[in-house]
Amino acid sequence: MAPAYKLTYFDGCGVAETSRFLINYGGIDFEDVRIKQEDWPQWKPKTPFGVVPLLEHNGKQVGQSIAIARYLAKKVKLAGNDDWEDLEIDAVVNTVQDLYQKLVPIFSEKDESKKKTLIETAQKESLPYYLSRFEERVKKNKGYLALGRLTWADFYFATMSPMFDLLTGGDNLAKYANLKGLREKVNGLPAIKKWIEARPKTPF
Amino acid sequence: MAPAYKLTYFDGCGVAETSRFLINYGGIDFEDVRIKQEDWPQWKPKTPFGVVPLLEHNGKQVGQSIAIARYLAKKVKLAGNDDWEDLEIDAVVNTVQDLYQKLVPIFSEKDESKKKTLIETAQKESLPYYLSRFEERVKKNKGYLALGRLTWADFYFATMSPMFDLLTGGDNLAKYANLKGLREKVNGLPAIKKWIEARPKTPF
Repeated sequence: MAPAYKLTYFDGCGVAETSRFLINYGGIDFEDVRIKQEDWPQWKPKTPFGVVPLLEHNGKQVGQSIAIARYLAKKVKLAGNDDWEDLEIDAVVNTVQDLYQKLVPIFSEKDESKKKTLIETAQKESLPYYLSRFEERVKKNKGYLALGRLTWADFYFATMSPMFDLLTGGDNLAKYANLKGLREKVNGLPAIKKWIEARPKTPF
Repeated sequence: MAPAYKLTYFDGCGVAETSRFLINYGGIDFEDVRIKQEDWPQWKPKTPFGVVPLLEHNGKQVGQSIAIARYLAKKVKLAGNDDWEDLEIDAVVNTVQDLYQKLVPIFSEKDESKKKTLIETAQKESLPYYLSRFEERVKKNKGYLALGRLTWADFYFATMSPMFDLLTGGDNLAKYANLKGLREKVNGLPAIKKWIEARPKTPF
């Protein structure tokens, strides 16, 4: 029987890795479809809004990485226990996303000298602004980003923070012991550890 | 007794108006706190991540406009009936947000000639790309963006699409009868109509 879920993305971690972590954590059977960069021009017009990831289930297809991750988090019991708890998780996730959005222009910038300036500004401004606040949260919150327990907000951080490093070329969590510890804790969960060892080795 | 909810934002619609619509739709009692632009420098350092809106309830405070709107949508029964339905709504909301994010640089651009170029590009590229696809969705979906019925995705579109017009200085829905109809349908709901008439008249 074909797996119940199909997740389509590029051949890399990127913004699909949160969902792949959740799928593996919960032992959900899925098809891990990876689009080669050179095939993307053929794929793009067939997607609903020109972007991936896409999740397929029961003949239906939807996009949006965070929406997909939230859905999977509910399936694998890493969501909140009530609406307010879900709000607290969502607020953390969207704040980590805010930081990511601030870094994305580094990726698009083709001029090397402008790229260097963007990286320096990020390292002086947005990265310490957000990371110091996340660090405080984790410190006060029993080692987690929300609700004093493991939630998909931690999975989101563990999978997005390597993107911060990739974009800036630095080890951004080096100064933040609690954040580094949180990422190691997620990466060390038996199912995640196994997935990290088994997943395709890709540049991003 | 003080209202159970306090929503703090600037003195304008902006990204808080989806939540104000939901609150009014559901008849939730709330305190509508509006920060004057000149007072923002005093407010900003007191917010958790330097941004508004913020929702306060039962002595707790959280940020993130879409997270707050999703929470309120559940309270007023404009969310999905199961996890997959919530995913479909979330995917629409985040796709409308993607379009908004593409337009935001127009707001930040101070050089008038560069601003004009950004607006022209948006009107030739991102606006028709997204709006034509939303138009098709609404046409096939009984007049709504998701699930063939009124959801908070429609509230999000009805409150964010005026921002598209504000940023580009144009009536962007003019060519899209179904989208225009959807916005009018939301704005014409009795509680929303009453709120629009009663709310402070602000430039955004």
